[in-house]
Amino acid sequence: MPLHAEPSQGSLVIVGLGPGRLDAMTAHALKAIARSDYVLGHAMYLEPLEPLLKGKNVISSSMGKEVDRASQAIELARTHAVAIVSGGDAGVYGMASIVLEVLEHAGLVIDVEVIPGVTAANAAASRVGSPLSGDFAVISLSDLLTPLEVIEKRLDAIFGIGIPVVLYNPKSRGRPHNFAIAVEYARRHLGSGTPIAIVRNALRDDEATIVTTLGEIEEHEPAIDMHTTVIIGGSESRIWRMGNDVKGIITPRGYHRKYVY
Amino acid sequence: MPLHAEPSQGSLVIVGLGPGRLDAMTAHALKAIARSDYVLGHAMYLEPLEPLLKGKNVISSSMGKEVDRASQAIELARTHAVAIVSGGDAGVYGMASIVLEVLEHAGLVIDVEVIPGVTAANAAASRVGSPLSGDFAVISLSDLLTPLEVIEKRLDAIFGIGIPVVLYNPKSRGRPHNFAIAVEYARRHLGSGTPIAIVRNALRDDEATIVTTLGEIEEHEPAIDMHTTVIIGGSESRIWRMGNDVKGIITPRGYHRKYVY
Repeated sequence: MPLHAEPSQGSLVIVGLGPGRLDAMTAHALKAIARSDYVLGHAMYLEPLEPLLKGKNVISSSMGKEVDRASQAIELARTHAVAIVSGGDAGVYGMASIVLEVLEHAGLVIDVEVIPGVTAANAAASRVGSPLSGDFAVISLSDLLTPLEVIEKRLDAIFGIGIPVVLYNPKSRGRPHNFAIAVEYARRHLGSGTPIAIVRNALRDDEATIVTTLGEIEEHEPAIDMHTTVIIGGSESRIWRMGNDVKGIITPRGYHRKYVY
Repeated sequence: MPLHAEPSQGSLVIVGLGPGRLDAMTAHALKAIARSDYVLGHAMYLEPLEPLLKGKNVISSSMGKEVDRASQAIELARTHAVAIVSGGDAGVYGMASIVLEVLEHAGLVIDVEVIPGVTAANAAASRVGSPLSGDFAVISLSDLLTPLEVIEKRLDAIFGIGIPVVLYNPKSRGRPHNFAIAVEYARRHLGSGTPIAIVRNALRDDEATIVTTLGEIEEHEPAIDMHTTVIIGGSESRIWRMGNDVKGIITPRGYHRKYVY
């Protein structure tokens, strides 16, 4: 740590990659990576970037090493142009906060920019109609960094006001029961017809979506894991149909109260 | 309206443009517009697209004509490739829901796709550090389509669980007092040091940001209008500093409870 905070020669961009295919990134994000000497990130997120990474120093790491990766990026950014990447939007359960926290703690003055991407909530929603059309909340069911009782309190309050909820990290080996707990809270406030979407790998080649209801969610629980995003509709959300097919979820904005169509 | 729902020859994409400059769009969105014969949208959103629109039929309309625009897009999409655009993400206070509602009502079976974009919440957050790092909520203060008492109930519940809130449509000529009401609810639950960011035209040439606190927000109220997004931090959010400068807001993920850095 320097005795005095001195401007550095390097730079640091924290880049949101979006859902994980090149054409779902913004040009802004692509350019930031192209300008960097070092690119750091989880191996899973670096893989689709490969065409962009020729001639660069690439440092891939595994999940759960976020603090080390942030420290390493900051150390390199004292003297180099460094990009650290996150899936989705870097500011939503991504690398932005931990990088900025470590940077602040190091007392370094550096050229740093966060570049937004399409977050999993919006990517998943787009694949099942328009479930998040109005107010909504985003809640992670991971209790690694947030105590479970805090998560439960949040779920209870949010289902209580009937807005749609996007659940990140709905289930994993370490926390297989948190999703069932969320369903329990949902049932305290929402009817069994409330639509639910399970979206796996939105916009990727192996994408899969399920549209069901709160009453029938148990049937589909095996499909939920850490690669899925779950959207639980609000009190006004309903199933969207085209012809005889269930296509997704619509949460009306309220135009039907004002207009005839 | 057709007597029988028959497959149409046309197609319809509902495209999220992101914050409003070309390089903040995804390639996926650019390609969808490039493939379209007709492009419909609010004039403000069509302007930055001009380089893409040569040789296309462009139909621009004014704010508040969303239902008419949706009907027109659907009518054209019976026989043409049509794109209807929204600022930010089309699924968040955008055109997706009303287009799908009108489409369902018309009983038309059509090739329709929603293409996500970077929503204003994420774009604004990226310009002021990492205020939305964990759970958060998105609430519109517009009472055009949602009764004010519903909005108040939602604000009270969300401030009560201490998660950051992004306020869309924080103020306009028609509803100058709703922001002050939101501040009142925030003060019931959050301390005066709670950080607040006001972001105008995120990522555009005329971008402007203010970082302040709940205790001092009144000083900055004149800066808030319908072109701003306001982020009110949660109970764990704090001001982010670099050297002597206030740079933005950090909402820690909770790594500090698990790691030393």
